[in-house]
Amino acid sequence: MEMSDERNVQEVLARYVRATDARDGIAQRSLFTDDAMTEIFAKTGPGAYELVGEPIIGGEGVRYAVEHFMAPHPEGGSSHHVTFDHLIEVNEDRAHLNAQFIVFETRGDAKPVGGWPQGAQGVQGIVRPIESGYYDTDFRLIEGEWKVVHHRVLGDLPFALPAV
Amino acid sequence: MEMSDERNVQEVLARYVRATDARDGIAQRSLFTDDAMTEIFAKTGPGAYELVGEPIIGGEGVRYAVEHFMAPHPEGGSSHHVTFDHLIEVNEDRAHLNAQFIVFETRGDAKPVGGWPQGAQGVQGIVRPIESGYYDTDFRLIEGEWKVVHHRVLGDLPFALPAV
Amino acid sequence: MEMSDERNVQEVLARYVRATDARDGIAQRSLFTDDAMTEIFAKTGPGAYELVGEPIIGGEGVRYAVEHFMAPHPEGGSSHHVTFDHLIEVNEDRAHLNAQFIVFETRGDAKPVGGWPQGAQGVQGIVRPIESGYYDTDFRLIEGEWKVVHHRVLGDLPFALPAV
Repeated sequence: MEMSDERNVQEVLARYVRATDARDGIAQRSLFTDDAMTEIFAKTGPGAYELVGEPIIGGEGVRYAVEHFMAPHPEGGSSHHVTFDHLIEVNEDRAHLNAQFIVFETRGDAKPVGGWPQGAQGVQGIVRPIESGYYDTDFRLIEGEWKVVHHRVLGDLPFALPAV
Repeated sequence: MEMSDERNVQEVLARYVRATDARDGIAQRSLFTDDAMTEIFAKTGPGAYELVGEPIIGGEGVRYAVEHFMAPHPEGGSSHHVTFDHLIEVNEDRAHLNAQFIVFETRGDAKPVGGWPQGAQGVQGIVRPIESGYYDTDFRLIEGEWKVVHHRVLGDLPFALPAV
Repeated sequence: MEMSDERNVQEVLARYVRATDARDGIAQRSLFTDDAMTEIFAKTGPGAYELVGEPIIGGEGVRYAVEHFMAPHPEGGSSHHVTFDHLIEVNEDRAHLNAQFIVFETRGDAKPVGGWPQGAQGVQGIVRPIESGYYDTDFRLIEGEWKVVHHRVLGDLPFALPAV
């Protein structure tokens, strides 16, 4: 039995979040068409958003953004972009996905040179949520593979761009 | 290929959490039958729960509860009810779903009149988990649509009702 | 329509996290083969992990570990191991799953003998994330049921074992 289109589409998103967390621009690029449009929005009020920066064009643009604009993880740090409650509509070679997302940041403590202190037990570090929102994404089936053609990141939090 | 019953049932829950976060009583109502029963429980001990308030009857009761009993989001605020690890059993025109849930609260900072302060960069605000538990829900397939007939919200935290 | 293999595999993981949170060694045991290998890893650097303790053998080993090595929940406490963004590959009677996970800890406040204080309203207690990582798991279909044969818990945080 073949995997359903809905699950295939959802797995593209699952690869997207892994590539984001790994800061893997090459893996990220492979999920988008050459002319895909990616737009990042920040909420300005109930149901209202503003575009953050310019739209990003194509898988190549996404690769560039991942490699140049995403802060690298600090030592001992990693992240999880996680998604929930997917609504997926497939219509022949087109699909639309809407998902909730939250970003978690993980920061492992550095092991002291002399080893963990007396009494330390279990995991050493913290996990905390830092962002939330919705992904709203269009896909096309191209030569048997679902590719992102339009990706909107709808962030819940206002966004401060550094002054130029 | 049609969407599987399991995915259809899961998408009703995905619409339920979006309607809850949007405080959209009309959208919420459409997911329940007219005589559906909704019960909210709070944990009192290992495996033990007490009912919070009265059972809510029908989609109309859910609409009323969403519109009258859920606190509106403060300015810059929103929420995400998110669900995980669904167990879904379909038996002809009946289905049962059990899912873990967590509620996250998002609070965006208000942009200062003079703009974000020097050095501010990225998202401005916080995301934090405030509730957790299980949804345990029965569905019936009615004229081709899965509707909630019995919805139990099993919260992990004790609940204080305001004195009357 | 039968449930898809992918969903069946995902539901084994959904039962695994429930059994973990319930500290139910018997339920946990039933999900693994008798010779399954379970390995818990802690991150030591980018893409690098070290094994925490010895590998655990079989469902019986998992039951023993759940019953003897997992700290019981404190009074009013519970947990949610939750999983996201599953990648599942099924090949006849073999399957492989990769999922993100986060562990949340819930701590309900104890209700004061005289009742909740004036002004208390809503849930009383906290929910917080304490661990994150990936599950990477192999399954085999045995007499119609998917069972875990190799389970790797890839934790993001360094782990301190108590001195022996």
